[in-house]
Amino acid sequence: MVMMALCVSVSAQKDFTLDDLMGSNAYNVYPKNLYTTWWGNVPCETTPDEVKNLLTGETLVSVEQFNKCLPEKAAYSAHNFQFPYPDQPIVQTEKGNRRVLVNFKTGLVVADVTLPQEARNADFCPASQYTAFTLQGNLYVISAKGEQQQVSHDGSTDGSENILYGTSVHRDEFGIYKGTFWSPDGQQLAFYRLDQSMVPSYPQVDIFPRISQVYVDHYPMAGEKSHEVKVGIYDVRTQRTVWLELEGAADDYHTNLSWAPDGRTLYVFELNRDQNDMRLVAYSTETGKKLRTVLQERDEKYVEPCNPLSFLPWDDTKAVMQSQRDGYNHLYLLDLKNDQVTQLTRGEWVVQDLVGFNTKTRSVIYLGNESDPRRRCVYSLSLKGGKPVLIGEEDGVHSVKLSADGQQVLDTYSSPTIPRSVNLLSTKTGKGKNLLLAPDSWKENGFRIPEITSGSIKADDGTTDLYYRMVKPIGFDPQKKYPTIIYVYGGPHAHNVQASWHWGLRGWEAYMATKGYLMFILDNRGSEWRGKAFEQATFRQLGEVEMRDQMSGVAYLKSLPYVDADRIGVHGWSFGGFMTTNLMCSHPETFKVGVAGGPVIDWKYYEVMYGERYMDTPQANPEGYAKTSLLHKAKNLKGRLQIIYGHNDPTCVPQHTLSFLNACIDAGTQPDLFTYPGEGHNMRGIKQVHLHERITRYFEDYLK
Amino acid sequence: MVMMALCVSVSAQKDFTLDDLMGSNAYNVYPKNLYTTWWGNVPCETTPDEVKNLLTGETLVSVEQFNKCLPEKAAYSAHNFQFPYPDQPIVQTEKGNRRVLVNFKTGLVVADVTLPQEARNADFCPASQYTAFTLQGNLYVISAKGEQQQVSHDGSTDGSENILYGTSVHRDEFGIYKGTFWSPDGQQLAFYRLDQSMVPSYPQVDIFPRISQVYVDHYPMAGEKSHEVKVGIYDVRTQRTVWLELEGAADDYHTNLSWAPDGRTLYVFELNRDQNDMRLVAYSTETGKKLRTVLQERDEKYVEPCNPLSFLPWDDTKAVMQSQRDGYNHLYLLDLKNDQVTQLTRGEWVVQDLVGFNTKTRSVIYLGNESDPRRRCVYSLSLKGGKPVLIGEEDGVHSVKLSADGQQVLDTYSSPTIPRSVNLLSTKTGKGKNLLLAPDSWKENGFRIPEITSGSIKADDGTTDLYYRMVKPIGFDPQKKYPTIIYVYGGPHAHNVQASWHWGLRGWEAYMATKGYLMFILDNRGSEWRGKAFEQATFRQLGEVEMRDQMSGVAYLKSLPYVDADRIGVHGWSFGGFMTTNLMCSHPETFKVGVAGGPVIDWKYYEVMYGERYMDTPQANPEGYAKTSLLHKAKNLKGRLQIIYGHNDPTCVPQHTLSFLNACIDAGTQPDLFTYPGEGHNMRGIKQVHLHERITRYFEDYLK
Repeated sequence: MVMMALCVSVSAQKDFTLDDLMGSNAYNVYPKNLYTTWWGNVPCETTPDEVKNLLTGETLVSVEQFNKCLPEKAAYSAHNFQFPYPDQPIVQTEKGNRRVLVNFKTGLVVADVTLPQEARNADFCPASQYTAFTLQGNLYVISAKGEQQQVSHDGSTDGSENILYGTSVHRDEFGIYKGTFWSPDGQQLAFYRLDQSMVPSYPQVDIFPRISQVYVDHYPMAGEKSHEVKVGIYDVRTQRTVWLELEGAADDYHTNLSWAPDGRTLYVFELNRDQNDMRLVAYSTETGKKLRTVLQERDEKYVEPCNPLSFLPWDDTKAVMQSQRDGYNHLYLLDLKNDQVTQLTRGEWVVQDLVGFNTKTRSVIYLGNESDPRRRCVYSLSLKGGKPVLIGEEDGVHSVKLSADGQQVLDTYSSPTIPRSVNLLSTKTGKGKNLLLAPDSWKENGFRIPEITSGSIKADDGTTDLYYRMVKPIGFDPQKKYPTIIYVYGGPHAHNVQASWHWGLRGWEAYMATKGYLMFILDNRGSEWRGKAFEQATFRQLGEVEMRDQMSGVAYLKSLPYVDADRIGVHGWSFGGFMTTNLMCSHPETFKVGVAGGPVIDWKYYEVMYGERYMDTPQANPEGYAKTSLLHKAKNLKGRLQIIYGHNDPTCVPQHTLSFLNACIDAGTQPDLFTYPGEGHNMRGIKQVHLHERITRYFEDYLK
Repeated sequence: MVMMALCVSVSAQKDFTLDDLMGSNAYNVYPKNLYTTWWGNVPCETTPDEVKNLLTGETLVSVEQFNKCLPEKAAYSAHNFQFPYPDQPIVQTEKGNRRVLVNFKTGLVVADVTLPQEARNADFCPASQYTAFTLQGNLYVISAKGEQQQVSHDGSTDGSENILYGTSVHRDEFGIYKGTFWSPDGQQLAFYRLDQSMVPSYPQVDIFPRISQVYVDHYPMAGEKSHEVKVGIYDVRTQRTVWLELEGAADDYHTNLSWAPDGRTLYVFELNRDQNDMRLVAYSTETGKKLRTVLQERDEKYVEPCNPLSFLPWDDTKAVMQSQRDGYNHLYLLDLKNDQVTQLTRGEWVVQDLVGFNTKTRSVIYLGNESDPRRRCVYSLSLKGGKPVLIGEEDGVHSVKLSADGQQVLDTYSSPTIPRSVNLLSTKTGKGKNLLLAPDSWKENGFRIPEITSGSIKADDGTTDLYYRMVKPIGFDPQKKYPTIIYVYGGPHAHNVQASWHWGLRGWEAYMATKGYLMFILDNRGSEWRGKAFEQATFRQLGEVEMRDQMSGVAYLKSLPYVDADRIGVHGWSFGGFMTTNLMCSHPETFKVGVAGGPVIDWKYYEVMYGERYMDTPQANPEGYAKTSLLHKAKNLKGRLQIIYGHNDPTCVPQHTLSFLNACIDAGTQPDLFTYPGEGHNMRGIKQVHLHERITRYFEDYLK
């Protein structure tokens, strides 16, 4: 067992309130920050009033100066200033549907465009200064001079509630978060056309009008009809749309659209609905015809392309891509002259993000967890060969912004003992200077801070390491026995334990420590940053392996003399709500109290893209769906379980929770319930305080 | 203070379960019953197998005998046998959409008609043996021989989701419960046509299909567009429809359609939307034209016609009607030759129901509470003058069935000490013989039974008597202090305290007594059986006077040494859910725990007919709506309040509860919640057990 402890000297004055941790007071107790941005290769600091050159301290551009250039004020905070051109003194800001670009040397207004009030999905291309946007299902392009064109499909303009142009598709899975993709020169626009007319609508009720109203949300459930996506390319010069001649089935996935630097080829990652056969296909942007299949990747469980190609700035024929093909997410160099793939990084660790390139050293900059699965550190790797160079500290969780030429990064990180550190570093040497080392704002504010540790236990296979965070109650006395709460998420594409400040402690855990609870958080198999086998162990049986790992955590807790085995609770949201309900119903002898938020209850009510990746369809995997459905487990409920959901949750639709209630009623078991009207999958803003007051009260009522 | 105590000797063996009181075991612990019916003037007993002459003990007709007459079995229990003709040996039964009439002397089948599967609102007329029914919004008539006609409106057949022929209208207010009314000879059919196309739809979600589905329920909210009703008269002989030429506004109310014995006149009680101006209007059934306004009744608060005219069997020109015009509901004789009205009953008590007439003695038989507001006794009053004659016991709550000639009643009653008594009585002498005196089934089953008493306190006006029921905990010790729960309804047209068995005890109260709670139930002003001033004290401010009366009850409770003033809870459903939530928020210092079921939260979300009667419209009474809205009181919540609602409640729509939750969330208060998917305003069947387990647990968690 690996054990890393963080002891904070307790100079106790006061306890956290929820308002301190997540409410209106939270900003006062965050660690100090330094807000940075790049103007090309000039590192800058932003404040509400201005952007300053970090090296010279000189003002680059102020809000006052910016607004003076305009007939009507457009900038309200310099934190929103952006510098789209590395080599031009142009600053950009957005306010609502208005976008303004100003030359901050001359004071001339470069562009001042206001989109229609109902416009959505604005996508600005610095190269051409065109903005794409959608309006009532249709797609438009507007120039910096305000000239507007409608992107039409063979002259038709059939955007509607059912047909959506230019929006995100596939419910934001596969790294998709938008629906328009400008070519490098900004003269062509690739876009999605989504037809969801064949997808049933989930009825959501808005209670806020005079009389409640229904609104429909097309929600493709696992095994049911999925929506159909096409890809078009609109040429602004010819005002002509070409449609890619996609092969495969109508409900295949088309992800990570990647423009070749010359704008003549579009690469699309195509995936069958079963998600186990992925092809990277090259299309002519002139004809829409398929040029070739660049590569294919199959997996007996699933392939999940989450990242587009990144072309080398110095070689238009080569791109870096990411793949889990060797069992861990790594970088590969793809030579598009011969479609050869060369592995760049390797090892039993994962690349967490591709940051960019240092053009001068011909290196790729990436984030990875080679030194510890809980970390996210910065590395540079020369494409000419050699070993990765560590940039900055080999600890903590880093976020970086790369300069235009890739020779420097602005690196912000925290580690278990460091609240925040901001640094300007060379990507060649990995060295540089510190710009901010934030003091411990919790200590400064006089809060009593619990002891927070991280370690690992073995899963029941005897070999897999499972990392946990433990938060001991304030005033911990090892002779006492404490009520203990497991916080859990447990689903894919997420983790809870990381080497950031306080090991990634969530505010509520600190709060519960002040109330005398021991908190325990363990990342089970299925969670991210651990490689493909770790993640895919859950395939076709979501919740099963995850629960076994959480029960390994319980066994560890029970081995500790200060954990009261008769007072173990569990709380989680979303996948964690599924886990919480599952644990309460599958291990009623272990868990006395649970609070499940926005839970999945039966995967057949979850959506096609995510659901079928991990569970296949209900038709193909009936035994897996039956085994993992909590409807069948409702009868086992013994402890106190409160389910909380957003009344308008579009992600885990209310049918989950309501079906579970009905199953409990039929079985004579008694869950508790709460709902937040008008809220979605997660509570917003101040409702977080109300929610956590509620969650806390439940444990105080029944676990203490 | 009047105090009437009922002491039950406690020979304790076992405690009630909820299953005993309201679940699958409840039938075993009900008091013994004798099921009775009349064949003309022959009193009969029904059993599952047969109908027997109660005087001779001879079998009149058996299920076996009935079914032998038919090609396919139609009767399953003789409890469903009816005798539509006093002077013919014909027995009728219904099974699903099939109705069969058999001559039980000859064995001949008189009629055997099966309506279409989707038919609704079947209305059989013994005189003509026609059955009216509705199908997908339209209205049909079918003869005993199966000849079917569609009732059309000037040849049109526009029944739909929005246009409904032949159904109940005005949301079953004003005593309306159906939409077809046969003329005495069964050759003409008066019917409602309901147009609800202008009424917004409340969206209800059905969670039981594969993907949840919305269904709409036209729900006219107070102050909003109401539906529009017309009255047609269809002549089966001519197959022609005549429409009444109604005066007044399109959203007026047309209630209590009453046929003149000769079928040439239809009397309609018409009420303006403001419900303070009622006219009884006579129409020609031949032309549909108004003949005259028979009478008019106005009230500065509201008039509420709930009963049709009852014509004297021996004089086609006179009818008995009911009115609260002198402050109490009484009987009046209406002479339609000159439209003169003569008061028949009078006094500070109410007629609770008109039963019928004794043709021989020229008397009217009615139920009234002259001897005690909590009772419902049977009286006969000669129309020739004189004083009412008491029929049967002057105690308890009676239900009666009158013989065809009105000379006898089958009277079933219970009183505080008598579980059930069934009697055959002369309506002339008021005397007769007892047929059943049921033993105490609770004692027989060995249950420990709490002490149940009833008494009265004064309201805060110093004069008004308010009646209560008190249930002392099992094993009551006056030296101890008990947690106390007020059960409340409090709305109009209802009462909780009555002189029936155990003073009207509800099963849950007995259950809570076994758990050590003292239960207290008080009928506040606004409830029924007490006269107009008592009922109308709540006008334009529902909840205000009602709460003051409940707080008078609390003051009385606090004067009792064995009531723990620090542990007072409250529970109620519907109007009682409104009262519970209101009391929790208006008197947070008094009530520690509450459970509110299907509550009204703001009367603007309630429907037009009921809502505007008591509150006027939100436009006309903004201060009243504001004052009584619990949305504004959500911030005051301190104690533990659980709200429970049927997830598909069409009466108190979920917008009530959800709006309250939202107000609480905004205000930072913390109610609790539960909902029953698929259920309406009240839980059905076995869900009552789950519900009351839930309610009980909440008090056990927080009040004990």
